[in-house]
Amino acid sequence: MKFFNVKTVEETFQLIKEYYSPIQEWKMVPLEEAVQHILAKDIHATENVPGFRRSAVDGYAVLAADTFGASENLPAYLNVTGEVKMGEQPSKPLFSGEAMYVPTGGMIPEHSNAVVMIEHCEDLDGLLNLYKHVMPGENVIEADEDLRQGSLLLKKGTLLRAQELGALASQGIVEVPVVRKPIIAYLSTGNEVKALETKELLPGQVRDMNGMTIGALVKEWGYEFKYGGIVNDDFDDLKRKMQQMLAEADCLFISGGSSVGVMDYSSDVLNSLGKPGVFVHGISIKPGKPTIMASAEGKPVIALPGHPASAMVIFHVFAKKILNQLQGYEGLDSPFTFAKTTRNIPSAAGRTDYVRTRLFQEGEQWLAEPIFGKSGLISTLVNSDGLIEIPARSEGVQKGELVTVKLFL
Amino acid sequence: MKFFNVKTVEETFQLIKEYYSPIQEWKMVPLEEAVQHILAKDIHATENVPGFRRSAVDGYAVLAADTFGASENLPAYLNVTGEVKMGEQPSKPLFSGEAMYVPTGGMIPEHSNAVVMIEHCEDLDGLLNLYKHVMPGENVIEADEDLRQGSLLLKKGTLLRAQELGALASQGIVEVPVVRKPIIAYLSTGNEVKALETKELLPGQVRDMNGMTIGALVKEWGYEFKYGGIVNDDFDDLKRKMQQMLAEADCLFISGGSSVGVMDYSSDVLNSLGKPGVFVHGISIKPGKPTIMASAEGKPVIALPGHPASAMVIFHVFAKKILNQLQGYEGLDSPFTFAKTTRNIPSAAGRTDYVRTRLFQEGEQWLAEPIFGKSGLISTLVNSDGLIEIPARSEGVQKGELVTVKLFL
Repeated sequence: MKFFNVKTVEETFQLIKEYYSPIQEWKMVPLEEAVQHILAKDIHATENVPGFRRSAVDGYAVLAADTFGASENLPAYLNVTGEVKMGEQPSKPLFSGEAMYVPTGGMIPEHSNAVVMIEHCEDLDGLLNLYKHVMPGENVIEADEDLRQGSLLLKKGTLLRAQELGALASQGIVEVPVVRKPIIAYLSTGNEVKALETKELLPGQVRDMNGMTIGALVKEWGYEFKYGGIVNDDFDDLKRKMQQMLAEADCLFISGGSSVGVMDYSSDVLNSLGKPGVFVHGISIKPGKPTIMASAEGKPVIALPGHPASAMVIFHVFAKKILNQLQGYEGLDSPFTFAKTTRNIPSAAGRTDYVRTRLFQEGEQWLAEPIFGKSGLISTLVNSDGLIEIPARSEGVQKGELVTVKLFL
Repeated sequence: MKFFNVKTVEETFQLIKEYYSPIQEWKMVPLEEAVQHILAKDIHATENVPGFRRSAVDGYAVLAADTFGASENLPAYLNVTGEVKMGEQPSKPLFSGEAMYVPTGGMIPEHSNAVVMIEHCEDLDGLLNLYKHVMPGENVIEADEDLRQGSLLLKKGTLLRAQELGALASQGIVEVPVVRKPIIAYLSTGNEVKALETKELLPGQVRDMNGMTIGALVKEWGYEFKYGGIVNDDFDDLKRKMQQMLAEADCLFISGGSSVGVMDYSSDVLNSLGKPGVFVHGISIKPGKPTIMASAEGKPVIALPGHPASAMVIFHVFAKKILNQLQGYEGLDSPFTFAKTTRNIPSAAGRTDYVRTRLFQEGEQWLAEPIFGKSGLISTLVNSDGLIEIPARSEGVQKGELVTVKLFL
């Protein structure tokens, strides 16, 4: 097989950053629709949070100095002058010799600078016996302790998760500028590939599994998926259909055969769609070597191998990187863990291997049982919790060695 | 604070299984909508996959016996009798002394039992020089190698991920029985809690952050979220509103203050909703001790602590377990990894701690930098990639120790 531009996995990651540019479009969306979007602009805090000094515990607001020296044997005594209710302002300030009851989250009266936990106090008819001293600031959340007005709250390029939306909500921010999410188009190619609904296949034919697996991953990741159906192996038909799909999407994946002929021809079609064209023609990866990446006037166009399991592995390893790059997101992309492998796994140096694996726990230890099988088999993926990654510099791992596992979660 | 039924995290997980029963309703959904649903019935394979004997490589279909002894120095010679096209049946069977070209994924002619990779062959005008021998079955995918007709394809209770849908698609299955996804209702309580849209807060008031963070997690996890707004601290109002929300949902979360008074009163309201009522009143966990769990005639009702960060941590640790239990799913629930902590983290034995952490890589090693902060602060969650889990049996971890990190991904 002629691979005229084979790259390592690391080189491919780097090329993705060089060839594909972030989408510049953004839009305002209501906060509750912004989850899993990428923030398009810096956001500064417009208010202090919590905005008032509040207690972190149930207890008595005091002046810390009044408690110094207090202990189990030698309590301090303070006059209880009132009680603060949740959501209300204290009725009066606090002076030396006084204490006021405050519930967790309640506002602390003026002048007081600490709270003694209720466990360390005894209220005897308005005379508070205090069995522990507190330091200034103890059990108090300052008005700007969570978020300070004017400070940078969230940076452009931040992934908006539940906690970021919570922080925005605390500010009364109800909509937020987000990068438009890329739309992913997909086509299956190959004379042997038939629609899912086909009742009876002829010998030599298969149903379009890849359209289903790629589509499911795209939806699981929260993106819009445009399925373009199946195109026969005809240069002009494929080119026309790809142009049409590209016009209404931000990137296009196709999957086709993994034979020499098909790969050369996919490469020609990809090159015909626009400049600079193909920049990766084969990746030193297993499974999935016959993968092609191109840029058609800046839009990613990727030909995945035809084998269902290979196509899915390649999509797992590279598609999220591409989607993140299109959105200007640089953080952690997909979950991974570490486990001890239960078997020796050979690998060629210079090639990155992704071995399907089942995870299980033995006492404290997580073990990764490799599932070997030909790359075409979807059944091996069905039994997998993730992929053991064997880096290019390694010639394989020994039974009991700790390996990185990319999780299917 | 009076916790009259404090449970450990492990006990709470166990009680969730005992008190909450799986939803019995299921429905047929189109395959492309089934992603992340739980399969409601066993599915058997109705067809063999691939359904025909196909080649795993580009090469020549042969009888393995014809290649025995072939080597670089002493090639075997076979007559090329044709070429198999993708998606088509071979035009004729193969006999001893013959070879036929087959592309990757192509059907193998009758009688042939192995494929020699193209790299090890040379076609000289129809005379194939063959420089390597193959064993019977080499580079051949058998007709039932991926899935065998009649075998159990997927078990009831399986989480339908991309690969499971791919396996179903390969069978021409276009719809699938799934467990109805639980609907999650949520209410915020507390006189101090004001609507998100509130322009100016009075001192002592906060906006409803928890409605946003819990809602975002529910949506991220792919469930329907019903937001019931904010209810003041009034027993009858709260009970009425909770009954109303429970009637249209499968489980109900509320968050309220974490003060003694509020907790006792939440517990009373939860008990008033139905039998058997409250079974967890406080969990030995940090943050989030003041958590209450009840079953109202079998439906989960959970009171989360009011602190935004505590509420989110508790929801992370327990809500997915509850949702999985409601769907009869018992597999891995949320992604976790291992990293070396960059600092000592003290912890009380008997209590499970979840410490917010930022993850970063130093060479090969992943490090977890704990982010300390009062449990009320959402800003510490904004800076976190996950939660370090310090199990109940541990009294803390030393700098450099390997810790489990639950990932926010």
